[in-house]
Amino acid sequence: MRDFLAKKVVDLKPSGIRKFFDIASEIEDVISLGVGEPDFDTPWHIREEGIYSLERGKTYYTSNSGLLGLRKAISEYNKTKYKLDYNPKNEILVTVGGSEAIDIALRSVIEDGDEVIIPTPCYVSYEPCVKLCGGVVKTINLKNENQFRLQPEEIEKAITNKSKVLIISYPNNPTGAIMEYDDLVKICDVIIKHDLLVISDEIYAELTYGPKHVSIASLPGMRERTIVVNGFSKAFSMTGWRLGYAMGPEEILKQMTKIHQFCIMCAPTNSQYAAIEALKNGDNDVVNMRNAYDERRRFLINWFKNMNIPMFMPMGAFYIFPDISQFGLTSDEFALRLLNEEKVVVVPGTAFGDSGEGFIRISYAYSIEDLKKALSRVENFINRLRNSGK
Amino acid sequence: MRDFLAKKVVDLKPSGIRKFFDIASEIEDVISLGVGEPDFDTPWHIREEGIYSLERGKTYYTSNSGLLGLRKAISEYNKTKYKLDYNPKNEILVTVGGSEAIDIALRSVIEDGDEVIIPTPCYVSYEPCVKLCGGVVKTINLKNENQFRLQPEEIEKAITNKSKVLIISYPNNPTGAIMEYDDLVKICDVIIKHDLLVISDEIYAELTYGPKHVSIASLPGMRERTIVVNGFSKAFSMTGWRLGYAMGPEEILKQMTKIHQFCIMCAPTNSQYAAIEALKNGDNDVVNMRNAYDERRRFLINWFKNMNIPMFMPMGAFYIFPDISQFGLTSDEFALRLLNEEKVVVVPGTAFGDSGEGFIRISYAYSIEDLKKALSRVENFINRLRNSGK
Repeated sequence: MRDFLAKKVVDLKPSGIRKFFDIASEIEDVISLGVGEPDFDTPWHIREEGIYSLERGKTYYTSNSGLLGLRKAISEYNKTKYKLDYNPKNEILVTVGGSEAIDIALRSVIEDGDEVIIPTPCYVSYEPCVKLCGGVVKTINLKNENQFRLQPEEIEKAITNKSKVLIISYPNNPTGAIMEYDDLVKICDVIIKHDLLVISDEIYAELTYGPKHVSIASLPGMRERTIVVNGFSKAFSMTGWRLGYAMGPEEILKQMTKIHQFCIMCAPTNSQYAAIEALKNGDNDVVNMRNAYDERRRFLINWFKNMNIPMFMPMGAFYIFPDISQFGLTSDEFALRLLNEEKVVVVPGTAFGDSGEGFIRISYAYSIEDLKKALSRVENFINRLRNSGK
Repeated sequence: MRDFLAKKVVDLKPSGIRKFFDIASEIEDVISLGVGEPDFDTPWHIREEGIYSLERGKTYYTSNSGLLGLRKAISEYNKTKYKLDYNPKNEILVTVGGSEAIDIALRSVIEDGDEVIIPTPCYVSYEPCVKLCGGVVKTINLKNENQFRLQPEEIEKAITNKSKVLIISYPNNPTGAIMEYDDLVKICDVIIKHDLLVISDEIYAELTYGPKHVSIASLPGMRERTIVVNGFSKAFSMTGWRLGYAMGPEEILKQMTKIHQFCIMCAPTNSQYAAIEALKNGDNDVVNMRNAYDERRRFLINWFKNMNIPMFMPMGAFYIFPDISQFGLTSDEFALRLLNEEKVVVVPGTAFGDSGEGFIRISYAYSIEDLKKALSRVENFINRLRNSGK
């Protein structure tokens, strides 16, 4: 029997996060600071709408694009929050999480050999999704000294005559970096000059702890060349509901909807009803969760400061990205030893790209109590490293 | 600004079913016999498990492959029902409906130029999904005289040195055809001889009205070269929950899981809990729904017989596929005139491939009362055609 598998799929490396969790799952009494998922149950009134929809027998397909009521709510929400104006009829598509939105955005535009510029460290799915479409990844190594904000000259350097798409994701996983209006203005000129399409993953948009999120699509000349990806997982703590959306110019959304129709059909119906409630009445929940994250963030920042471990100030998402290069270990070695010696899971920065070398990602989607417990173990580990002169 | 869209996506024709529904949505007082979706609400005890999971705060991601408890239940169910034996740990993947399973099955094996043999008439997504992967579609025109069962010599004729995959789907949408053990045995030889991989879409497996469903993967030599796709939408009337699964050899499932992990993450959590209940305690519901479908099927068969419209005996799914060629109209003309003149939606056979010319698809996922009302309109139309000598 021949080998049926497609080479480009076999060649994809499995996620570096997953590898770590697999090791952790074999060890007893592990504390994880590894997961990229809110630790709050979905707020009750949102769950209640999901429940109510099931009670009423809303167990059928919705239209391919999603419930019109949900698309209208998404349109309103983005107008109010981010000055984004999309027509619910033909410029918004409800997807299975932000993940599907990114995948079909890429599938709708990438042809064999097209280059996609990806600033790293970044979320682990972008590169595999590009490769699955036959695209070629050009990474940019973002710099700590720039607070991991993308610089126009970094884009210039990555440009070739095959460049087609730039994927950006702020607030950023894993660094916690954000890009403010002035940062975005500077890169827009380059993007427009080189006629790039932007896929902007704004899934952490609601989780900023200083300046409010600005969408690149709201800047002059950018709407027609941007696909905005967002969703309910992070802001409303709705990961398991698998619900996200894409917004963009009609002609692109039309093609994305075609792929979605054939390959997925529609997003889960029950989740769509719950999501309407989230958008309409979920603001207070978001504020409360954001405040809780912020408290943890400050706690962590102080702790690392006291430990003399440098770290730029993370302003979004729910991660810190401390610089552990002083210990003379690779990120992988550091994380692996921490796991084996103190049973704490953190993710090596290299899981998010080569530019993550020298860093680890710590998630603060955990209670202060859990963080304290974990950090006392991390402290033991660090003291031991320092005392051993290593 | 350049045109960003990928040519192969733009070139995909939108579904011929959708075109018809769009026309119908503009007309008042339409009765539809067009939809491929059960008309029953999901049974209450299954919904209740979904509700209960939300109440308990099961609103987080599951593992990429799906809840182990669900995979175990899928494994047990398929062992009992279809003599299929798959390891829940690494040979079963829970997906977003059967749709995603088909898409990622193709993505895991198709390389540019690989040929996929698709017997038609068939479900509308296979061809676009193949083209999205860069595959080339080779259709087989199934014959009414063979009761739309696939013949070994038909496969032989479609084979080239680029043939890699055969997609089969029995019980079949749109024809209602099934393939029994003896039919499958005959094609297995050819499949093995030409070293093909089979993607077997068995989403209607529970809806047969005579011989029970036989999975091609249960035949000698076929397990290692078959990906079985199934799900909850049709058997348990759970379309809106978006839940399906793929089963197959470990090395293929491993690659499919990788795609699923990066592009989808996991299937909806709430739906997974409900699905466990469906598999464990849903047998009676399936029997009741199947009996209701069967009653409607018999009613339709009699009606068409009385109207002297030939039709082979549909033995599965919930469609009949009558031969309307005697009226001298194309399928499209017939369906369009029926819609405009009598406000009844049926789907032209050509929406499912060129071999559907001369046929229409009528769904019986409607109550007997609705069917009666619709058929009295169809009768007016047919009588008018006959009286006009056209």
